[in-house]
Amino acid sequence: MHILITGAAGFLGQRLIKALIARGELNGRTLTRMTLVDQVAPSVDHTTPPELAITTASRDLSAPDAWDTLLDERPDVIYHLAAVVSSAAEADLDLGMRVNFDTTRFLLEGCRARGLNQTRLIMASSVAVYGGQLPNVLDDMTALMPQSSYGTQKAMCELLINDYSRRGLVDGRVLRLPTIVIRPGRPNAAASSFASSILREPLNDEEAICPVPTDLELFVMSPARVVECLVHGAEVDAAELGACRALMLPGITVTVADMLDALQRKGGEEALSRVHHEPDEGVTAIVASWPGRFHTAKALRLGFRADDDFDAVVDAFISEQAG
Amino acid sequence: MHILITGAAGFLGQRLIKALIARGELNGRTLTRMTLVDQVAPSVDHTTPPELAITTASRDLSAPDAWDTLLDERPDVIYHLAAVVSSAAEADLDLGMRVNFDTTRFLLEGCRARGLNQTRLIMASSVAVYGGQLPNVLDDMTALMPQSSYGTQKAMCELLINDYSRRGLVDGRVLRLPTIVIRPGRPNAAASSFASSILREPLNDEEAICPVPTDLELFVMSPARVVECLVHGAEVDAAELGACRALMLPGITVTVADMLDALQRKGGEEALSRVHHEPDEGVTAIVASWPGRFHTAKALRLGFRADDDFDAVVDAFISEQAG
Repeated sequence: MHILITGAAGFLGQRLIKALIARGELNGRTLTRMTLVDQVAPSVDHTTPPELAITTASRDLSAPDAWDTLLDERPDVIYHLAAVVSSAAEADLDLGMRVNFDTTRFLLEGCRARGLNQTRLIMASSVAVYGGQLPNVLDDMTALMPQSSYGTQKAMCELLINDYSRRGLVDGRVLRLPTIVIRPGRPNAAASSFASSILREPLNDEEAICPVPTDLELFVMSPARVVECLVHGAEVDAAELGACRALMLPGITVTVADMLDALQRKGGEEALSRVHHEPDEGVTAIVASWPGRFHTAKALRLGFRADDDFDAVVDAFISEQAG
Repeated sequence: MHILITGAAGFLGQRLIKALIARGELNGRTLTRMTLVDQVAPSVDHTTPPELAITTASRDLSAPDAWDTLLDERPDVIYHLAAVVSSAAEADLDLGMRVNFDTTRFLLEGCRARGLNQTRLIMASSVAVYGGQLPNVLDDMTALMPQSSYGTQKAMCELLINDYSRRGLVDGRVLRLPTIVIRPGRPNAAASSFASSILREPLNDEEAICPVPTDLELFVMSPARVVECLVHGAEVDAAELGACRALMLPGITVTVADMLDALQRKGGEEALSRVHHEPDEGVTAIVASWPGRFHTAKALRLGFRADDDFDAVVDAFISEQAG
């Protein structure tokens, strides 16, 4: 089993690599080879079993021939996580189109040219594909109406992966990720940054700012569950996927108040007191435009698992920090 | 007012040209120039007013520089009707991607490069963008889940036009066309061919074959109404379009039995007797997969008009034949 991972130096890529190595197999076949690609060659600081050969490469995958040598090795599974983020795609349309869309098209064409029709291709997509006059609860038949170039590019990739899969040219699966909470690291410029920060910083005895009303709803998933879903995405039977290869992963709906209640339960009154409410209309407008409620019937039927509840999300973070 | 029309030699293009010339103006401005493009230079056999200059051109618009001289003339309105049809796009993925998708992308990039952000771009799309487990009645928030490469390419164009419009790079509008009935001409290989044939041939004293059950529902619009909608599409105020530039045109839902009843009323028992029922499972499967019922709330709110009823559709055909 040879697995190719793009965006392998990123937060999710690194966790996925660790989980796959720990697992040692995928689809019942022993992992013998992993090829890890990113703009800078990813580091691998995990203990690897002797039967597993790991290759790392730095590559700009948006060059038309960048995939050639990678696909010549005929990987069995491809995790395509590489992308430019929402703000960068909005700031630079050409960059977003090239990295988020053309790169995926080159990948699909590369698979097609080499007859890699059994290769399972898993791409990460996003709630950014949704927008417009959304219903209160979204489901598998809700229209994609992206209100950002990032969401547009991801939605176009979804359509293309669907069509190439329908034609039997590749075996694609697209997983739309909920807001990932609790991310490690520091607060950043992303509008969603607060969603991790209001938990992570207080649990680390630091101050945090909450820029949104506490009744705001978010659709969230822990990093551990996202990685579990990525692994599962490669194991789902193609026949079960039906007419659409894309699906929303089963996040859980929580209000910011729910999140702060969990913080209080896990970190006490002192942790809660470290969260300072400083309303920011700009951030609130962006985050409030993201859908907070989904019926993810298809994902659940296919065996993708949600977090048990928000306390479990916080517990997982605390035990990771400790461990 | 300078109007550029691609696919100008086609059935809809020719009717649109005629309607625009008869009208003499668009958006309150006198038509002074029309540029008509197709693979073979379109013919113009209409009487044209002296103030209107018509240029025709044969062009393969899928070449990256094919748009340059056309867009250098800074058209005020662009009707992009050129496309390869469903069966051709399914038979040749590269052809479909190049003509149906890349061409639209080149057009959008050409507008962007020239700052044509006031140019109104109207693209024809199709019910082929729909598919999967559809609800009984579709609406403006139903997911696009194309089950053909043609539908995929159109859906990708819709997303791109939406994003370029949102960014203020062009003023795009996408009209999804119902099944057009009654088309002129002869029966052809299209699965929808029968829908026109079972009326057109009997009204012309010829035999016709009905390959589908009479309870099958179709969502249809007359050629005259489609052209009216194309014209209206250039006159709708951009602000009214909201978060999505694409919309389904307001067809009417009819069963094949409804269509045959109208045939009997307009052409008598003799006309009806010319329709021979020869069930074809292949055709039935394709046509039955097309959605038959829509709430086209947005289109109706924006002033796009449906045919009054199916008798009006037949009447329009009869009077056109006579005239």
